[in-house]
Amino acid sequence: MRPFKRLISLEQALSMTSNCTVPTKKTERLSVVEAVGRVSAENVVSKMSVPPFSRSAMDGYAVRARDTFGVSKIKPVRLSQDEPILVGSVPKKTLTKGTCAMIATGAMLPKGADAVVMVEDTEVDGKAVLLRESVHPGQNVSKKGEDITPGTEIVSFGQVLNPSKLGALAAVGRKEMRAFAKPLVGIISTGNEIAELGAKLGPGKVYNINSYTLCGVISANGGQVRMLGIVNDSIDDIKRVVNENSDCDILVFSGGSSVGERDIMVDVLERVGKVVFHGIAMKPGKPTLFGTIGEQLVFGMPGHPTSCLSNAYVLLTPVLRKMARLPPQQSACVLARIAKRVVSTTGRTQFLTVRLDGEVAHPAFKESGAITSMAFADGYVIIPADVDLIEKDEQVTVYLL
Amino acid sequence: MRPFKRLISLEQALSMTSNCTVPTKKTERLSVVEAVGRVSAENVVSKMSVPPFSRSAMDGYAVRARDTFGVSKIKPVRLSQDEPILVGSVPKKTLTKGTCAMIATGAMLPKGADAVVMVEDTEVDGKAVLLRESVHPGQNVSKKGEDITPGTEIVSFGQVLNPSKLGALAAVGRKEMRAFAKPLVGIISTGNEIAELGAKLGPGKVYNINSYTLCGVISANGGQVRMLGIVNDSIDDIKRVVNENSDCDILVFSGGSSVGERDIMVDVLERVGKVVFHGIAMKPGKPTLFGTIGEQLVFGMPGHPTSCLSNAYVLLTPVLRKMARLPPQQSACVLARIAKRVVSTTGRTQFLTVRLDGEVAHPAFKESGAITSMAFADGYVIIPADVDLIEKDEQVTVYLL
Repeated sequence: MRPFKRLISLEQALSMTSNCTVPTKKTERLSVVEAVGRVSAENVVSKMSVPPFSRSAMDGYAVRARDTFGVSKIKPVRLSQDEPILVGSVPKKTLTKGTCAMIATGAMLPKGADAVVMVEDTEVDGKAVLLRESVHPGQNVSKKGEDITPGTEIVSFGQVLNPSKLGALAAVGRKEMRAFAKPLVGIISTGNEIAELGAKLGPGKVYNINSYTLCGVISANGGQVRMLGIVNDSIDDIKRVVNENSDCDILVFSGGSSVGERDIMVDVLERVGKVVFHGIAMKPGKPTLFGTIGEQLVFGMPGHPTSCLSNAYVLLTPVLRKMARLPPQQSACVLARIAKRVVSTTGRTQFLTVRLDGEVAHPAFKESGAITSMAFADGYVIIPADVDLIEKDEQVTVYLL
Repeated sequence: MRPFKRLISLEQALSMTSNCTVPTKKTERLSVVEAVGRVSAENVVSKMSVPPFSRSAMDGYAVRARDTFGVSKIKPVRLSQDEPILVGSVPKKTLTKGTCAMIATGAMLPKGADAVVMVEDTEVDGKAVLLRESVHPGQNVSKKGEDITPGTEIVSFGQVLNPSKLGALAAVGRKEMRAFAKPLVGIISTGNEIAELGAKLGPGKVYNINSYTLCGVISANGGQVRMLGIVNDSIDDIKRVVNENSDCDILVFSGGSSVGERDIMVDVLERVGKVVFHGIAMKPGKPTLFGTIGEQLVFGMPGHPTSCLSNAYVLLTPVLRKMARLPPQQSACVLARIAKRVVSTTGRTQFLTVRLDGEVAHPAFKESGAITSMAFADGYVIIPADVDLIEKDEQVTVYLL
């Protein structure tokens, strides 16, 4: 058994993992329907005007504004009616002096007209219409190109495609666009004691937990998961899975990164790539391995389910989001008072899971091998390395799970 | 053209839509891999112990604790070594007085042993081992069932399946589980002026924007989208699409809910279901129609892209999440100072889009027909109906888009 050579701080670990992370250059074409939450890989410049023609912004009557000047409720004007203008059609006639045309919201303004009087300010009077409000030129009209002019960049390279950006793409008729591909993350559980779900559990075996918690975190943070199952703790088996998955942007192993004689992730990584660090001053999560194989990133997470999952939140998520070109995660958090005094080790960052009862946070951590340390918690508190004590009733920030 | 009969407040609208919303009863079986973010439709009770056997929580030596009592760094004890215990295997021998066995984290504790001395506190001495630390019974051991005992409810009906809950399911070997189905939401754009993306735009036509912005909001809030394309503004066509999609939990129309003569959503809804309200004291979003056809909810959103999308955020999202049994959305928000005085209409809630420049929020709203009112904004401010003025530099909460 080999001891850790040196523990680094969580801050150092975060800086080293970030420095090794290259934002993806892989792109793919997506339909606008699939693109929500994805990151644009192009500057989309409109070739057209939106709206493509001047149109009415209201239901009402298209008029020549000057025919309404001086008009008011007590001094209406009476205009004769042209044919109504339907949405989706092209007005046939030019509006002439003293006439108006009923027009619906979104319908094309006829030639000659330059404003619309709202229906609320009008009254039909036989074949004519009484208008009771004056309008200025352009009033209640959406001018051609008022929303988007040709040459306007409507979506920029690197922007996250929220629903309104999809709307802008649709407005100029774009059915597809180029977005950055989701980083492909291979997930591997190592260990001769690990058994796959659904099978009957043999003696000395436990079910594969880490592949599923990792899958959840990765899919929720812009990654595409490749489930690679369980691999035996053997140099050959681990080398094989590494070689076969060189197309993955990230490989996440769990188990086999501690200092046990049979923990061989370090050996493999030293042979086929580079170990960047091994061991973080963090609880849980100390026996964490990180390295690179070319541009591919390799995480060796502890086998303990809570250590593996807390590492996924703290270390893997920022890397994955940077690679996916997504902004840092905005974890929902609440302020709470801690229910009892918590002692932490100076020099180690602590990831303390808590159960919330109103505004009181009860420590929920059992041990790093217990998944219920997380599954029965509502959130977690990060206790910095230089804090060794949180007194009862002290306020803490709880990041919700 | 028919005027709105009566405008209701946004608060009334939210209460009426919520009262009409029944949390879904439809369920489906999902694999644990697909289940992240979904809502459990069952109480999952463990039938097994986790861990299924007492195991070592550390790399070290399995011992009888009493053989270490009184031991310290300066007074070590020398124990003879049994065969090492590998993870995933069953120890063959019972540990007897004066012996110990090398054991890796996760390996099954041999009979006779009741504690583990950490490798850091040991030293190999020929065929024996020097132990330099005393341990109490149970120390560095994860007892059988310490994480989960048979009969423990590990996931409850109605809980959102976050990664740690998936881990708990995996821990007891569950490969699949029953979750609530995503509400099925049919999206229909109405209007003779609307053209589908990708096609060349004829005169008087505009591209379909609302189907795509709605699709984005619905997929991001737990809904399953059925894109139903564009339907003409005719009673028969709209009735047909309603009849053909009675399996949808929600139908969202856009366009055709204003008071124009050709706006016929109200007519259709009055014939086949029930109008709950038509018209909200909100800007944009006034001409909003809401009703029911049995348990199916029907929204008639304004055709203006910004009104339709702001309505999707404010009105549709809470309904969709309640139906999906998801907790209310925790929108990311920031505090900012408003860049200039904003006048609002008393009695109308205003949805004001803003661009953020550091901590300054610049109003970005152009007009409700302009998608760039939203697409070029970073977030929005809700100005309550009883506020008619925000002074320059006043602090506002900006909900990020």
